[in-house]
Amino acid sequence: MNPSTGPTEDERRARAALTRLLEPGDGLGALAVRCWGAERTLQVLGGPDAPEPGERQDLVVAAADQGHRVTSRTWSAAQERWSTRRADLAPDRDLETIHRLGGRLLVPGDPDWPVAVDDLGGQAPLALWCRGTSTIPAVHRTVSVVGSREATQYGQQVTAQLVSGVARRGMTVLSGGAYGIDAAAHRAALAAPDAEPPTLAVMAGGLDRFYPAGNEQLLHQVAETGLLISEMPPGASPTRYRFLARNRLIAALAGAVVVVEARWRSGAQNTAGHALGLGREVGVVPGPITSAASAGCHRLLRETPSTLVTEADEIISLMPHHALPDDGLSRPSPAAGATKAGEQERAHDHLTVEELLVFEALPVRAPAEVARICSVAGLGTGTVLGVLTRLGRQGLAEQRGAGWRRGSTAR
Amino acid sequence: MNPSTGPTEDERRARAALTRLLEPGDGLGALAVRCWGAERTLQVLGGPDAPEPGERQDLVVAAADQGHRVTSRTWSAAQERWSTRRADLAPDRDLETIHRLGGRLLVPGDPDWPVAVDDLGGQAPLALWCRGTSTIPAVHRTVSVVGSREATQYGQQVTAQLVSGVARRGMTVLSGGAYGIDAAAHRAALAAPDAEPPTLAVMAGGLDRFYPAGNEQLLHQVAETGLLISEMPPGASPTRYRFLARNRLIAALAGAVVVVEARWRSGAQNTAGHALGLGREVGVVPGPITSAASAGCHRLLRETPSTLVTEADEIISLMPHHALPDDGLSRPSPAAGATKAGEQERAHDHLTVEELLVFEALPVRAPAEVARICSVAGLGTGTVLGVLTRLGRQGLAEQRGAGWRRGSTAR
Repeated sequence: MNPSTGPTEDERRARAALTRLLEPGDGLGALAVRCWGAERTLQVLGGPDAPEPGERQDLVVAAADQGHRVTSRTWSAAQERWSTRRADLAPDRDLETIHRLGGRLLVPGDPDWPVAVDDLGGQAPLALWCRGTSTIPAVHRTVSVVGSREATQYGQQVTAQLVSGVARRGMTVLSGGAYGIDAAAHRAALAAPDAEPPTLAVMAGGLDRFYPAGNEQLLHQVAETGLLISEMPPGASPTRYRFLARNRLIAALAGAVVVVEARWRSGAQNTAGHALGLGREVGVVPGPITSAASAGCHRLLRETPSTLVTEADEIISLMPHHALPDDGLSRPSPAAGATKAGEQERAHDHLTVEELLVFEALPVRAPAEVARICSVAGLGTGTVLGVLTRLGRQGLAEQRGAGWRRGSTAR
Repeated sequence: MNPSTGPTEDERRARAALTRLLEPGDGLGALAVRCWGAERTLQVLGGPDAPEPGERQDLVVAAADQGHRVTSRTWSAAQERWSTRRADLAPDRDLETIHRLGGRLLVPGDPDWPVAVDDLGGQAPLALWCRGTSTIPAVHRTVSVVGSREATQYGQQVTAQLVSGVARRGMTVLSGGAYGIDAAAHRAALAAPDAEPPTLAVMAGGLDRFYPAGNEQLLHQVAETGLLISEMPPGASPTRYRFLARNRLIAALAGAVVVVEARWRSGAQNTAGHALGLGREVGVVPGPITSAASAGCHRLLRETPSTLVTEADEIISLMPHHALPDDGLSRPSPAAGATKAGEQERAHDHLTVEELLVFEALPVRAPAEVARICSVAGLGTGTVLGVLTRLGRQGLAEQRGAGWRRGSTAR
C-alpha cells in the first residue's frame, strides 16, 4: 500500500477504535464518519469534543437526504450510547492483537478493500478485521452458502455436493462459521481447494477466539488457508444483534447467496432478505415438505423472488454476468442473468437500502403481516412501518387487510 | 334432461360414434363437428358422403380463422385416417355397454356437461364416457393431483397428507387412475369423503375394463362412489398417445393442478403444461434434490410460472377466486388469485390454445431447447416451431442460441 494515496495510519487507528465504539448498523455514527471523516468522528463521538455548528449542520443535512431527522434528542441518546464505550477504546492494542494473530485491519481505500460492501450504503462496515493472509476475492468469484445450525443429514449432504461443485468451478465459498450448514460448506470448500482462497468465514464477534467452540479446529483451518472476517474488534462478543448485522456482510460480499436448509424463522432468511435488497441473486435448495429444516427454504421460494437450485451449474448461473471470469471454468447463463438484473434495477431505482430491504421482503401476491416483513427484511417495526408508508405512496407497496404486498406498479 | 332443449338422441348417438372414429385432438374432425354438427359430420367422415361445396367452404374458412389451411392433401390424408375406422363404428353397442356398466355418455348441451372442458377450444372432447352415477363437479370444486407412477414412499405420504387436507375442505380430487401418485391421491380422497363425489379418474382408454390391472379394485371403488371418465368408447386401448391427450382433460376439469413427484421427463409435466396453457394454476410439491422422483417438480418450479406448495391451504389458495364457494370450508386468498389471473390474462389475450401451450412452456430466463418446449407443451416439433415463429413476431418469444425463452414484452 502506498501511504501517499491509501489510508493513513491515523485513519486506520481511528477506524479500529470506531469499530469498538459503534455497534454495526449505527446509522448516525456511520453518517458522522462520512461527513467528518473517521479521525474527527472519533474525537467527537469517542472523546470530549462537541461538534462545531457547521459540522452539526452538515450531519443534519446528510441525514435529511436519507429521510432521517437528527434532533437534540436523537443526538443525546446517541451520545449516551457512545459514552458507555469510551473507556474501552484501545485501538493500538486491538491492532497489535490482530497482527499477532496473523491478521490485519482492512479499511476503505486499501487496495484490497472489498468494494462490494459499499453497496450497503449507510450500512457499510467502517472497517473489516481479518485473520489469515488471503485477500477477499471479488464478488463475482464468491458464493455465500448459509443455512440452519440444526442441519439434517440431507442438508449436510447436499451442502457438500453443491459446494464441491461451485468450488470446482473456481468459486470461493463464504459462510458464517456456525454449526450445521455453515460448517458443512466450509468443510467441503476446504476439501476441494480449486479457488484461492477456498473459503471465507464472516464472524459475528472478535477474531481472537473461535466461536462456536465446537468449530475451533475448522475455523483455525479457515484462518490458515482462507480468511476469517469480522467488523467487530478482538474481544467483542458475538451477540444476537451482531449475528443479524453480520448477515448483511455475508450477503454483500458474494455474487449470490444459496440457502440450503432453513427453518420457518431463521437467520438464513434474514441473509437472503439482505441479498435480495442488494440486488444479489438468492438460490434456494428445496427439501422434503415433511422436514421442518426446509420450511424456511420453501417459504423463501413462495414469498420472495429467489430461485430454486438443485445443482452447482444452476448456482453459477445466478452469479453477476457482467463480471464473469473468462477462464472457462464456469458455464454461466449470461442472458438469464441480464434479464433478472435488469428487472431488479427498475424496481430498485431511487430506493434507499432500507426501502430496498423492505420492498424485497414484500410478497408479490399473498400479503404478509408487518412482523413477517420485519423478519425477512431484518429491520425493526418502526423502520418498516415508516418505509411501507413511503413505498405505498410510490405505488411499490399496498396494504391488504392486516398485511402488505408489492404494489401493482411493482408486480 | 329436457329433450326439447337438450341434445337429441341422434346427436348423442352420432357423438358416440365420432369418439371411436376420431382420435382425441383430431383438429380437423373436431372442426367439422363445429361447422356441420355431429350428425352430418358422421355422415361425411364416417360414411360415403362427400361434403357439399358450401360445407367444404365453411370448413376452410373456420380453419383459416384458427390459422390453419385445409388443402386437398390435408383432406385426403384425413379421409384415409378416418376410413380405417369406419367398419368399427358401433355407437348403439357402445352406448348399451356403458349403460350396462352403470354409466352414460355426456355430450355438450347436457345439463351436467362440464363446461370447463370447453376452455380447450378446438381441442375440447366431443363427448365424455362416464362410469358411475356421480356428476362432475364445477371446476372450482375440483383439484387435480398428478405425479409419477414410480412414486417414492415420500411421494405417497405427502400425496395422502395433501389430498386429505383438500378433501376435508370439500374439494373433489381428480387424477389419472395410474399407479403411484395417482393411486395414492384416489385412495386418500376415498378415505376422506367430505366432497361429493370424493374423487374422479380420467382414463386414457375405454371404461369397460380397469387399467392398469393392479388398480382394478381401486378403480372399481372410484366408479362406485365417484366417477370414471374417458373420451374413448368402451373397448378402446389406452395408447401412449391417448395418455398424453387425456392429460389435457385432467388439466381442464380442475381449478388447479398439483404435481407431487415427477421425473425429469414425465406425463405430469405435460399435464402441468396444459394447465398453464389454460390459465389454470399449477402447484408443485418439492422434494429432496437427491431424489430423481422430484427432478421434474424442481424443473417445473424453475422453468414455469408454477407455485411451490407444501400444505392443503396453499393448494386451496390457487383455486379460481371468482368461483369460490361461500360455504366457509375453504380459506382462499382472493387477492392473490386476482393478481395471478390478471397477469395471465394480459399474456393470453388473443392467443390460440396451441400458442398458449407453447408460450406457457417457455422459460422466463434460461432458454430451453425446442425438444424441451415440445415436451412441456405436449405438442409436436412442427407445431411448436410454427407457433414459436408467430410468438416471436409478437415479441412473446425470443430465440437465444439453440433455445427459446419468453420475449422481453412477456417477462
